[in-house]
Amino acid sequence: MVLETQMWREFLIPYQQAVQEMQIKFESIVNEYHKLSQYSPIEFVTVRVKKISSILEKAKKKGIALSDIENEIEDIAGVRIICQFVEDIDKVVSLIKSRRDIMIKYEKDYVTNTKSSGYRSYHMIIYYDVHTALGEKRIQAEIQIRTLAMNFWATIEHSLKYKYKHNIPMEIRNRLVAAAEAAHNLDNEMSKIRSEVLDAQDSFQYKSGI
Amino acid sequence: MVLETQMWREFLIPYQQAVQEMQIKFESIVNEYHKLSQYSPIEFVTVRVKKISSILEKAKKKGIALSDIENEIEDIAGVRIICQFVEDIDKVVSLIKSRRDIMIKYEKDYVTNTKSSGYRSYHMIIYYDVHTALGEKRIQAEIQIRTLAMNFWATIEHSLKYKYKHNIPMEIRNRLVAAAEAAHNLDNEMSKIRSEVLDAQDSFQYKSGI
Amino acid sequence: MVLETQMWREFLIPYQQAVQEMQIKFESIVNEYHKLSQYSPIEFVTVRVKKISSILEKAKKKGIALSDIENEIEDIAGVRIICQFVEDIDKVVSLIKSRRDIMIKYEKDYVTNTKSSGYRSYHMIIYYDVHTALGEKRIQAEIQIRTLAMNFWATIEHSLKYKYKHNIPMEIRNRLVAAAEAAHNLDNEMSKIRSEVLDAQDSFQYKSGI
Amino acid sequence: MVLETQMWREFLIPYQQAVQEMQIKFESIVNEYHKLSQYSPIEFVTVRVKKISSILEKAKKKGIALSDIENEIEDIAGVRIICQFVEDIDKVVSLIKSRRDIMIKYEKDYVTNTKSSGYRSYHMIIYYDVHTALGEKRIQAEIQIRTLAMNFWATIEHSLKYKYKHNIPMEIRNRLVAAAEAAHNLDNEMSKIRSEVLDAQDSFQYKSGI
Repeated sequence: MVLETQMWREFLIPYQQAVQEMQIKFESIVNEYHKLSQYSPIEFVTVRVKKISSILEKAKKKGIALSDIENEIEDIAGVRIICQFVEDIDKVVSLIKSRRDIMIKYEKDYVTNTKSSGYRSYHMIIYYDVHTALGEKRIQAEIQIRTLAMNFWATIEHSLKYKYKHNIPMEIRNRLVAAAEAAHNLDNEMSKIRSEVLDAQDSFQYKSGI
Repeated sequence: MVLETQMWREFLIPYQQAVQEMQIKFESIVNEYHKLSQYSPIEFVTVRVKKISSILEKAKKKGIALSDIENEIEDIAGVRIICQFVEDIDKVVSLIKSRRDIMIKYEKDYVTNTKSSGYRSYHMIIYYDVHTALGEKRIQAEIQIRTLAMNFWATIEHSLKYKYKHNIPMEIRNRLVAAAEAAHNLDNEMSKIRSEVLDAQDSFQYKSGI
Repeated sequence: MVLETQMWREFLIPYQQAVQEMQIKFESIVNEYHKLSQYSPIEFVTVRVKKISSILEKAKKKGIALSDIENEIEDIAGVRIICQFVEDIDKVVSLIKSRRDIMIKYEKDYVTNTKSSGYRSYHMIIYYDVHTALGEKRIQAEIQIRTLAMNFWATIEHSLKYKYKHNIPMEIRNRLVAAAEAAHNLDNEMSKIRSEVLDAQDSFQYKSGI
Repeated sequence: MVLETQMWREFLIPYQQAVQEMQIKFESIVNEYHKLSQYSPIEFVTVRVKKISSILEKAKKKGIALSDIENEIEDIAGVRIICQFVEDIDKVVSLIKSRRDIMIKYEKDYVTNTKSSGYRSYHMIIYYDVHTALGEKRIQAEIQIRTLAMNFWATIEHSLKYKYKHNIPMEIRNRLVAAAEAAHNLDNEMSKIRSEVLDAQDSFQYKSGI
C-alpha cells in the first residue's frame, strides 16, 4: 500500500510539472502584454492536477482499466485560462494553436454550444512534453478557456455538483440556469463596452496572489 | 533629480512592505479555510502601491503639499479583497475589525450606497505598522472589499476613466450603468444559491498565480 | 484517527502562518537593502514547520505530555537566516531585537561557543503573534542565524545524524570536524576580504527560487 | 529615447521568459527528487537577465555592433545551478545534455581548469526556444554550474571586480586566492563525507524564498 502510494506519487509528477510549466508560460505572456502596455486577452491562469482518488473514481465510473488511465483520462492535468471578454476566447485559442510546444488533440466549444445546465467554456485537449527527473514524457492535458463571469458561475455549479453528488435538485438547477443567464447577460453588456476599453486598458496595477 | 528618485523610492518602501505583509496575511487565512475544508469568505487578494507619478498628480489636483502627502493621501497602499457572495463582505469586514495589527481610521459603504456611476465596494481606511530596513513606521492603507462581479465591473470602469481622463461620454456611461445592473443581478442570483453552496464548497483545487 | 489528523492539521496552522509571515518580513528587508543599493546583512531566509511525526517523536523522547507540547517544544516553527559574513550575524541579531512584533525568550550563541561536533549558529527562541482564521494566537519559534559556510556544514551534518539516528560513527565524526574547520577557515578568509566587499556590493542580480 | 527604451524592453522579453521557464523546469526536478525522497544533484537555481546598460557596455568594450548583440553576447540570459558536492556538477551536465528543449552550443570547464583568479564553475552556452506574446524565438543563454562553496567565493569576487572596475589590487587578489583555496578545501572535505550523505539525505525540509 505504501509502495502503491509512492507509485501514484511518481505517476503524478510529469502532470504536476506540465501544469506548472504551462502556467508560467501563459503568465509570462500576460506580463509581456502589461510590459508592452497592451491589453492582454488573458486575465489570469490557474492550474490543477486531479487527485489520485478522483482519478480512480473516474476510471471506475467509466470502466477504464488502470493501464489505460493515462490514455483515457484526458483531464488529469488541467489548465484554466480566464479572459475579461467573450471575444478574447478566440484570440487565446489561436494563440495556443500557434505554439509548437502544445499539440491539439481535439476541441469542444461549449461557448457557442451552451450545455443545458447553463455551462459555457471552450475546452481543448492537448499533448505536452515534459523532462522530469525520471526522463522525458508526453502527457495529455485539458485547457479550459472562459470569461470571468463564466468562471464565477462554473465555480458555483462545481460546488453544488459535489454537494449533491451530481444529482442537483430541480429547484436549485433552475436557480443555476437563471444565474447562468445573468452571467451571460453580464458578458454581453461587457462586450458592448469592449471596443472602448481595448485601447484604454493600462497595465492593471493590482498583483494577484494565492 | 536622481537624488529625488532615490528619495521617492525610499518613500514607497514601507508601503510596499505593508501591502506584501497584508497580502500574505489574508492569503494565509484563505489557505486555512481550505485546509479546514471550510468555505472561505475571501476568494482572493490583490495589492498595489500607487506609482509616484499618480501620487504627485493626485496631490496637485487636490492641492496637497508634498509634506502632507503621507497624511492626506490615504490610498498610497491598496489592498483588494474579492469575495464570491455579497454576504461575505460583512464577514470580511468583521474579520478585519477583530485584528489587533490593523487599526480602522474610517469606512465607506458603497455596497449599500451605490455610487451614481454604478460603482459598488466596501472601503476601509486603516493604519498598519511595518518594520523596514529603515526602521518602524505606521502607514495608512485603503482596503477595498467587493464581489467578483463588482470587481469585474470596476476593472472595466477604471480602464474607461483612464482612457477618457475622467470624462466618460454619456453613451458609454449609460452602457456602464447597464453593465452594473447586470453585475448586480448576477450577484443577486448567486446569493439565492448561496446557502446551498456554503456547506458544499470543497477546497477549490485550482491554484491561481501571476 | 481521521479526527485526530484534522486536529493536528489545525494545530499546525498558526505555526505555518507565523513562519510565512516572518519569511516575507525578512525577505522584504533584503529587497529593501537591494533597492537602496546597500549591502544586506541577510543573504536569504528559509522556513519550516516541524512535521507532526517529528513533534510526537521529540515529545516522547523528552517525556513531554501532549498538553505541554506547545510550551515545551520551542522549535515547532523554524526560521533560518543565512548571512555572507560572520560579522553580519550580530547585525541580524540587533535587527531582530529592535522589532516590536518579535519578542525574545532567550538566546544561545553557538557561534562563539562552537559545539564539540563542530556546529556553529546563533539561536534565538522567540514569541510571535498571529491572526488566523481560528483567531489570534501567540506562538514560539526558533530563529537560527548562520553564514553560508556554517549552513552548508550543518545541512550535511543533519543528513548524517538522520542516517545514523544520532550515532554517527567516530570516523565520519572526525571527517565532519575536519569539514567544520574548513568551513570556519573559509568564513575567516571571507571576513578578511569583508571590508573591501561591503561598499562594493551592488544589488546582486540573480533571483533565487524553489 | 522613450521609443528606444520601449524597444529595449521588448528586446529583453524573450530572455526574461526563457530564464523563468528554465528556472521552473530545474526547480521542478529538485522538487521531484524531494518527492521521491532521493538526493537531488541540484541544490537550488537562480536566474538573471543582463541589464540593458550592462549589455551596451559589454558591446562597446568588445566592439560588437548593435545588430550583432543577439548573436555575439551569449550571456544576456543567465541560469545558475548550485550543487552541494563537486561530483554533482557532472550529473547536472549530463542531465542538461539529455534534454531536447536545451541545445548545447559549447562548454567551458573551469572546475577542472581553475582560472588564475581562483574562479571555478562549469559553463554551458545553450540555445532555447520561447513562445512570447510577440511570437516564437530561439535565444542563447549561459548556464553556470557550481558548488555552494564555489558560489560563495564567486559572489564575493564579483562584488570586488565591480568595486575595482576589474582592477582588483594585488593584496586583495592574494586574499581572494587564499579564500578560493579555503573554498576548494571545504569542497574536498565535503566530498570525503559525500558517500555517507548520499543515501542519508532526507528531503531537506526548509523552504527557500526571495
